[in-house]
Parts: sequence; C-alpha cells; structure tokens
Amino acid sequence: MSASGTSIDPAILERVAFNADGLVPAIIQQWDTLEVLMMGWMDAEAFRRTLTEGRVTFWSRSRQEYWRKGDTSGNVQYVKGAALDCDGDTLLVTVDQLGVACHTGTRTCFDGDQLAPVVGEAPSTAHDRSEAS
Amino acid sequence: MSASGTSIDPAILERVAFNADGLVPAIIQQWDTLEVLMMGWMDAEAFRRTLTEGRVTFWSRSRQEYWRKGDTSGNVQYVKGAALDCDGDTLLVTVDQLGVACHTGTRTCFDGDQLAPVVGEAPSTAHDRSEAS
Repeated sequence: MSASGTSIDPAILERVAFNADGLVPAIIQQWDTLEVLMMGWMDAEAFRRTLTEGRVTFWSRSRQEYWRKGDTSGNVQYVKGAALDCDGDTLLVTVDQLGVACHTGTRTCFDGDQLAPVVGEAPSTAHDRSEAS
Repeated sequence: MSASGTSIDPAILERVAFNADGLVPAIIQQWDTLEVLMMGWMDAEAFRRTLTEGRVTFWSRSRQEYWRKGDTSGNVQYVKGAALDCDGDTLLVTVDQLGVACHTGTRTCFDGDQLAPVVGEAPSTAHDRSEAS
C-alpha cells in the first residue's frame, strides 16, 4: 500500500525554517549505534515523504530531483524517529540503515576524512560544576 | 597559552566545500554518549579556530559574529575529533559538552520537538543480506 500523497499536519510544516532555497538539512543517525551516517537536504515534499512513507527521501541539490535513499543502491534508510531542532532549521532523523550509508561504500559519510584537531580538555571539576548548577 | 592565529594545513581547507555564503554546516556530537547535540555553521575562520583551539567556534548567521560556544553560557564544547564528509560539505565534530548544548536549557537542540513519523521496518532478512554482500 502506498503512502504517496499522505499529508502531514500543517502545523509541523509551519515549524520548519526552510532556507532561501526552500531546503532544510537533515542529519541521519543510526537509531541503535547512534552513528551519524550522513547529512542530506529536504524540501517540503521530501520532508513530507520522509515523515509519511517510513523511508528517507532527500532532495538532491546536484541532480535537482528527489532521491529516495536505497532505491538504486539497496541501501535503504527506514525511518525510526524524527525531531526538529530548537529553531526549526535542522532535522534529525533516526533510521535503520541497510548496508552502507555512503556512496563511496563506507558505513558513514564521515569515515573517510578524519581531521586531527587540537583536542580540548574540560577541567577535572567542570562536569561536576555544570551538573550541580 | 593562546592558539589564536595558529594556521591549519591549506590542503584541509581546500577539501572543505563552503557554500555560496562561505559557510559549512557542523554537526556537533557528544563523544561518549553519541548524542547529536546541535548543528551550527562555520566559515573558514571559525573552522580554523575549532581545529586549533580545542573548543568549538561557530559563525552566527543571525548575529553575524563569531560565537565560541560557552563563552557567555559556560556550556563549553571541548573538541575531541572532527571529520569531513565524503564531498567535504559537512563537518562532524565530536565534543565533550559541559552542561547543556541548547540555549533553551535542554541537553540537545533536538529534545523539544519530536515528530511522529510513520516508522519503517526492514524485512527480517534484509540486514543479513546486506551484511553478506
């Protein structure tokens, strides 16, 4: 049974702060391991499809077309949950990712280019203070 | 000792695909719990500071100024790691977050507006197939 055309609550759509191109970034996170798999972009229609079809659909900025993850690769993203951030301009979607998320063949799109930042260290008592306040 | 002015490898900067506004989105993830805390934006200078200072600096699009997380709130983000995605247009920064990440007072910026998407379900054999191939 297709969910195509299923509408979503207009009040939800109104809370999404789409950018000047009509897009919102969507962070995709594996629901159980909590790996950040990738980030993609959605317009209102891709957002609607993602919330109503049980599978993630992006808007491909490079190809200018809808892209339901896994339709060609088999690497389907089944939707487990979704949340808007505090100002509505970023979406977090938790998914069950089949296979790999990245078109390069790695599990996540962040596996290939680890940078080596200077690492910061919280003062030993800092967490205690912040938890106590 | 200040790391202000410390440069980064130009080859790294060349791999970052800044958008038309000169910005790249940065997903901030707690290093141990793997919570996605927030997303912010960095220009080349905020990116440089984040990679060299041990603390996360954003470019505030609304205030049009640099914003080193925690300077006013105390909710510092200490950098633990960083990675560019496969096409260099998204950054993932793992951090040790003091206190809360969100200005609304919640631990993450995604705690306040949980949507209720239709949930998808992988066929029972799907993971086996994808792992075997």
